[in-house]
Amino acid sequence: MDKRGKFIVFEGGEGSGKDTHIDRLKKKYAGRGDIVFTREPGGTSQGEQIRSLFLAPRERKISVPRELVLFVAARAILLEEVILPALAAGKTVISNRFGLSTIAYQIYGRQCNEHLPMLQKLSAFAVGDAIPSDYILLDVTPEVGIARVRSRGDGMTSFDAESLAFHSRVREGYLKHISDYNGLVIDADRPLEEVWATVEAEVEKIIG
Amino acid sequence: MDKRGKFIVFEGGEGSGKDTHIDRLKKKYAGRGDIVFTREPGGTSQGEQIRSLFLAPRERKISVPRELVLFVAARAILLEEVILPALAAGKTVISNRFGLSTIAYQIYGRQCNEHLPMLQKLSAFAVGDAIPSDYILLDVTPEVGIARVRSRGDGMTSFDAESLAFHSRVREGYLKHISDYNGLVIDADRPLEEVWATVEAEVEKIIG
Repeated sequence: MDKRGKFIVFEGGEGSGKDTHIDRLKKKYAGRGDIVFTREPGGTSQGEQIRSLFLAPRERKISVPRELVLFVAARAILLEEVILPALAAGKTVISNRFGLSTIAYQIYGRQCNEHLPMLQKLSAFAVGDAIPSDYILLDVTPEVGIARVRSRGDGMTSFDAESLAFHSRVREGYLKHISDYNGLVIDADRPLEEVWATVEAEVEKIIG
Repeated sequence: MDKRGKFIVFEGGEGSGKDTHIDRLKKKYAGRGDIVFTREPGGTSQGEQIRSLFLAPRERKISVPRELVLFVAARAILLEEVILPALAAGKTVISNRFGLSTIAYQIYGRQCNEHLPMLQKLSAFAVGDAIPSDYILLDVTPEVGIARVRSRGDGMTSFDAESLAFHSRVREGYLKHISDYNGLVIDADRPLEEVWATVEAEVEKIIG
């Protein structure tokens, strides 16, 4: 394996502040050519095409197994096109979401637990040893997260429109599986600036 | 399962005449709105994007497991966007390639037999019961097939440039696995018009 750089992944539910903190990191590290930011699903033109499949309103619902395969495929493309070349060049990669999102949203959120074993086999097959070195979960309680999203009043994706129960299940999935990766859980119910101070310090610690 | 129409798949190695015969079928059935032609990989804008990943020359070779996942993902998209809606509407679908191609080319051709069990699990997961009703293999010996491709002198894809040994392995894979689907094997070493007469008659028999 040619992996040398650090591979940092941020995860978190709606209203966790994930996008805000990643934007701040982008600004902070804008001058550093050795830090690559990406996001999932998407992050490549092919991945964005696949992403558009999930977000498009449709007559027939896509089958859950096929949806899972598409998420993993988008991840495989992102690995081949963006993440692995960057890591091989010794760069640090910071990704907005990775494999844990699929477990949290598709398996827990949508209550498809019967598909978890196959998803894990498939992920091991497709992702192989390209496992994030540092998973950071911005843990937000659904009540706080949803209130934040509502107060923003911006466009909601299909996921945002789901219920409190859905987001509680997503959080359960995150908390249950973050330990599979020795991930870090940051309390994101706190005020933005407090969370940012933690995020900033943790990323500094990892990047060194 | 909402599958009602017939789902016919043509498979075959380079120079088997597959594209020619499918073109003839397209012309023959041009007036029939109840017959849908498609091809794999590709067949949708998202699938074409994925297809472009395989055909693009690249610095790093894509990993075989990730390539297999991408082929299955392209198939999942084609099912969701084209094949299943058509079958559900009672239409006949005729596809240029489907799952057998991945077994023949990637597993046998590229000698990745260790990945066959996972590919089969993954296919069962993603394709489910959307299995072709009629698999038709245009069986060509590599010597005949390659001679035909060379005499055409047209642009060669990366697959066409591979060796005779590669194409022998592809054929072996086809012949070994066509029976998994009770497929029909047509001797495509014969002159084009003879093969066409067989193809035409078989498709008529299926469509009725």
